[in-house]
Amino acid sequence: MGGDIGPRVNVAAAALAAREGIQIILVGDEAVLRAEVERLDAGALPMSIRHASQVVEMEEKPSEAMRRKKDSSIQVACQLVKDGEADGVVSAGNSGASVACGMFVLGRIKGVERPALASIMPTEKSPVVLIDVGANVDSKPYNLAQFAIMGDVLARDVLCVKKPRVGLLSIGEEEGKGNVVVKEAYDLMKETKLNFVGNVEGRDIFTGNLDVAVCDGFVGNICLKLSEGLARSFGRVLKRELKSHILSRMGAMLSMHSLKSFAQMLDYAEYGGAPLLGLKSILIVCHGASNPKAVTNAIRMAATYVERGSHERLATELSAHSALSQFSRHKS
Amino acid sequence: MGGDIGPRVNVAAAALAAREGIQIILVGDEAVLRAEVERLDAGALPMSIRHASQVVEMEEKPSEAMRRKKDSSIQVACQLVKDGEADGVVSAGNSGASVACGMFVLGRIKGVERPALASIMPTEKSPVVLIDVGANVDSKPYNLAQFAIMGDVLARDVLCVKKPRVGLLSIGEEEGKGNVVVKEAYDLMKETKLNFVGNVEGRDIFTGNLDVAVCDGFVGNICLKLSEGLARSFGRVLKRELKSHILSRMGAMLSMHSLKSFAQMLDYAEYGGAPLLGLKSILIVCHGASNPKAVTNAIRMAATYVERGSHERLATELSAHSALSQFSRHKS
Repeated sequence: MGGDIGPRVNVAAAALAAREGIQIILVGDEAVLRAEVERLDAGALPMSIRHASQVVEMEEKPSEAMRRKKDSSIQVACQLVKDGEADGVVSAGNSGASVACGMFVLGRIKGVERPALASIMPTEKSPVVLIDVGANVDSKPYNLAQFAIMGDVLARDVLCVKKPRVGLLSIGEEEGKGNVVVKEAYDLMKETKLNFVGNVEGRDIFTGNLDVAVCDGFVGNICLKLSEGLARSFGRVLKRELKSHILSRMGAMLSMHSLKSFAQMLDYAEYGGAPLLGLKSILIVCHGASNPKAVTNAIRMAATYVERGSHERLATELSAHSALSQFSRHKS
Repeated sequence: MGGDIGPRVNVAAAALAAREGIQIILVGDEAVLRAEVERLDAGALPMSIRHASQVVEMEEKPSEAMRRKKDSSIQVACQLVKDGEADGVVSAGNSGASVACGMFVLGRIKGVERPALASIMPTEKSPVVLIDVGANVDSKPYNLAQFAIMGDVLARDVLCVKKPRVGLLSIGEEEGKGNVVVKEAYDLMKETKLNFVGNVEGRDIFTGNLDVAVCDGFVGNICLKLSEGLARSFGRVLKRELKSHILSRMGAMLSMHSLKSFAQMLDYAEYGGAPLLGLKSILIVCHGASNPKAVTNAIRMAATYVERGSHERLATELSAHSALSQFSRHKS
């Protein structure tokens, strides 16, 4: 039911994924969803409907929505996973409410202090995982080390990187640069079995020479939104400039194909949504303004995550690194 | 002497500024500087030379450079200001050493706990001041409130904005969103006489609907470098795409003028350098890779700052808001 446009986008996206053989349960107002399925002539696809009488609105406070709307589509969807009827959840609705439902209904993997939201961002070369992009603020060093482990599993399983290069976002490459939390996180990350490449800077994120960038959710959320905003500004300025002269307009027509490829680099729909990692299952939060392509890609990502057993691998990795937790708790 | 290319760029930039009537003292190796001045046939301009026997290298540790190289060009330049022989300093050298010399040689305005580095960034419309971009990490709420006051004076005097819109960089627009430090800084900023527009998000920085964005130096430095990196990536991808087909190449030629205007939005040289605010004078730190245009613009900015009496205004504003300091110290 969620998203700026609502079920029309989500059902279309689900139908596309179902055509590829992914089993779908649409959760929300049954009449509305059934009408969408019929409109798309998608009745024969592996899609069922589960009724939920309420919808969390985009501007609602997550905590209140959790409490007041027990029969909201997002809460019912998470409950389906908890009850073993589904393996993962994809939502384009209220992000805060999705994260809250994920944390409280799905529950955390044993040993995970704080689940984290990962964003997969396009770069000049291969995509990069930025984690956390806003599930937490005021993270402790040990939280950052856990985010690194989660991001590593995501890069391996979803982006198919064999030995992900994991960096810690800071303000200088040398060890010892950064704020208090980052300096201690550096020490912890050195102790992991990750391919830890040390501190990385803001300019390193989009070079494509990095697979995972680890940061606190306050920093990551600002980075994500800044990148989106800057990309949109560039797009608008370029369009405005190209429209301003007759020669430019002709030029733009001739170079249309290349300009489209350029625009794809700005297209966040490529990776669909941000997975919330550290839960007993997978929940993927899509942008409210997602188009069907973005939501389909998010569904594909959830399916890949489940098929490859990423959740089990994550639990194993976190448990293998649990000694770090003791180290950190004593220090902080 | 500083910068990736060194005196050749700096002397050329200084000569341009001197032609506009700005009095210049070149600080560094006298023989080298004199040769550059002669090469440019700039002997008649209002430029003098002050010898300094040492240079801080780009990779040197600021604290060591401060201690070991008392006769470095940056330290001698700051001393000139302290002795009343100059009114401000512009450097394209080691940023850390420049900031350290600024803080310790020039000294802070009374009441300033932490000077801050401001970056003026181009947007779709008018430029925006991002402060702090790396002079400090682990800033306290009161520091952020002081950064806001400094950024406001800079936007008024250098960008000529009458009533700068000052925002606090956070992860949600509503009051109460953000980390612990930002939440308290919000309360302090509400108490100022600034045109405080509340929390702003990463996506708001480049819209041009904001004049000053306030943040801790850890966040600001990452934002600044991320923006630079992303802009460069976009430029490279666009160039690569346009070169890849014969039609695109023709198109690119026809739209050359517009593509150049687009590139200007990516051009940080427009605003020259980052002023370090809160000192008893002005120090402007330029990018190591600055071209003469960037350094000339930085010199112009320093001259404007001095001519408009921004330093006195800043001291007055900070003192008018000193009650905030008491409020904050009691709370934190």
